[in-house]
Amino acid sequence: MTNAAPRPANSVLEGEIRQQPDVIANLINSPEIAQVAAALRAANPSHIVFAARGTSDNAARYAQYLFGIHLGLPVTLAAPSISTLYQSPPRYRDAAVIGISQSGQAPDVLQVLHDAAAQGALTVAITNNTDSPMAQHAAHHIALKAGVEQSVAATKTYTAQLTALALLTAHLAEDAALHRDLAQLPAWMAQALSIAPLLAERAERFRFMSHCVVLGRGYNYATAFEIALKVKELTYVIAEPYSSADFRHGPKAMIEEDFPIIAVMPDGATLPDMLALVRDMRERGADLTVISANPEALELAHLALPMPQGVSEWLSPIVAVVAGQFLAMDIAAVKGNALDAPRNLTKVTQTR
Amino acid sequence: MTNAAPRPANSVLEGEIRQQPDVIANLINSPEIAQVAAALRAANPSHIVFAARGTSDNAARYAQYLFGIHLGLPVTLAAPSISTLYQSPPRYRDAAVIGISQSGQAPDVLQVLHDAAAQGALTVAITNNTDSPMAQHAAHHIALKAGVEQSVAATKTYTAQLTALALLTAHLAEDAALHRDLAQLPAWMAQALSIAPLLAERAERFRFMSHCVVLGRGYNYATAFEIALKVKELTYVIAEPYSSADFRHGPKAMIEEDFPIIAVMPDGATLPDMLALVRDMRERGADLTVISANPEALELAHLALPMPQGVSEWLSPIVAVVAGQFLAMDIAAVKGNALDAPRNLTKVTQTR
Repeated sequence: MTNAAPRPANSVLEGEIRQQPDVIANLINSPEIAQVAAALRAANPSHIVFAARGTSDNAARYAQYLFGIHLGLPVTLAAPSISTLYQSPPRYRDAAVIGISQSGQAPDVLQVLHDAAAQGALTVAITNNTDSPMAQHAAHHIALKAGVEQSVAATKTYTAQLTALALLTAHLAEDAALHRDLAQLPAWMAQALSIAPLLAERAERFRFMSHCVVLGRGYNYATAFEIALKVKELTYVIAEPYSSADFRHGPKAMIEEDFPIIAVMPDGATLPDMLALVRDMRERGADLTVISANPEALELAHLALPMPQGVSEWLSPIVAVVAGQFLAMDIAAVKGNALDAPRNLTKVTQTR
Repeated sequence: MTNAAPRPANSVLEGEIRQQPDVIANLINSPEIAQVAAALRAANPSHIVFAARGTSDNAARYAQYLFGIHLGLPVTLAAPSISTLYQSPPRYRDAAVIGISQSGQAPDVLQVLHDAAAQGALTVAITNNTDSPMAQHAAHHIALKAGVEQSVAATKTYTAQLTALALLTAHLAEDAALHRDLAQLPAWMAQALSIAPLLAERAERFRFMSHCVVLGRGYNYATAFEIALKVKELTYVIAEPYSSADFRHGPKAMIEEDFPIIAVMPDGATLPDMLALVRDMRERGADLTVISANPEALELAHLALPMPQGVSEWLSPIVAVVAGQFLAMDIAAVKGNALDAPRNLTKVTQTR
């Protein structure tokens, strides 16, 4: 190891992370999401069922808060094996079913869409491939238009999925303030990229980390899951996501001197609860990496990763995950891992 | 450390684990669950919302499969912070809402029940304390009658929660075969306890384990979560649960020589998929602990934990978790941890 920054030049992964402001700016101007919103409004479902795996499932987790808070809609995350292995699809009466998949090829997610359509439920697919089986099968398709994603670890398609769900929410809520927030998102994403040099410099401190916990709550429960997944995929380090509430119900027992914690703490309704937990963890000697715009939160950190100021809480998961993407990538680089093609994985995973 | 078995005599925890056959036999004869089933049938909800934290949340995870497969009912696991931190409870129109809590005191779960009742939804509480706020507030209460649980790590109240949910399913399905299966459950639980001497003898092999993954799918997705939670609470070792499907979507990258995996593999629809994954993990050099009645599955294991033969798949989570309870307890004993009062935790956790 020389004194040079460890990140290899020109990885596909880094390029895709850096494309995110443009991908999101492009998606925000897409007219088709308003049409899907109109169809959903007409169907008037009593609840929404999401089917997704991996990174796309984390996008569904975000939707649980978006749809719950802004639209009053309960969200169910489907258990696809109920359809695929037990052949007992639940009744989708009164539901709308949304399948999310980067490739649009997930066989188990496709099965859920198929069962729902057969029962007469409204179906929507969110994918990055207009020609994919899911895009072709669902009654409505939201194309992410993120450009081909080559790196096995999904980054730009994840934030595009989140943005599509946020846009859908803004259209369904018919709330001009939400649309005004969305218009600022590309600029916030561009600012978020400015964390890169700091992480390139500091990631070596994680050279010997063997496990960690990622904490987030509310809207950013999804961010905790997604950062943990990137850490596992790219660094091969076990990383477990928790809400601050669930963490207190048992897992907190693990915390001891130097236990690594990554805390996702954007401004908003969950910040006081996160601050209380992180302060407690600091007193117990945990090693804290904090993603936040809040000075008090950043001051608790051993590694402070400042977010852009003024990001609306409901859109903060799209902005906050960027620091986690760089963090995972840079730890992987420090460990000498392949950034674009992690071991054991393929880009399209066919599960049933 | 002498050659004697490391497990301390007479821990409260071990006593509570051993009470499970009696607790379940007692619960099966409880008449009140049939009445709750009648009320649920009359309400005819389009979906069920569960609110729970920690171990109780794992019981809700089991219900997602029970209600989906046997009753065709979609199950939503509530995100309580939508009510408590964002003050935007979703519409519970057409839903029935079931809160689960050992103590019946969880403030966030109580808030969800309160919001649901205010909207006119049917509410049910499942607790081990008839005098608790949740039991008093909900329209219907299922008492677990498990006796006081003193150990911080919940064991007998978890399997009692699962049994209550299975009974509710049998009553709602009006299926005599399910009731016949349930009648065998106390005997299966008694047989499951016979794993104790093997674990007392072999748990030392985990003395230096610093992390592990727990795999299960379908009905036993809940078992993977619950065993992982017991391992974290009691041994302080990071243990992350996955379905075999989700595991292939990224986390599989972590697996290398000697990576510890605990696989929950009862007979049934998910066994072929679990066998394929575990065979792959064996080839990659993972260290495998297998809970199963299947000879092929047990043969793949470095530590084989045989389950009773002939357990019905839908009830297998109640039986399979017992080996995981002993495993977590015995690793904790080997590590010299306090079995009845793990560090950092209290019996009743008040989260909002």
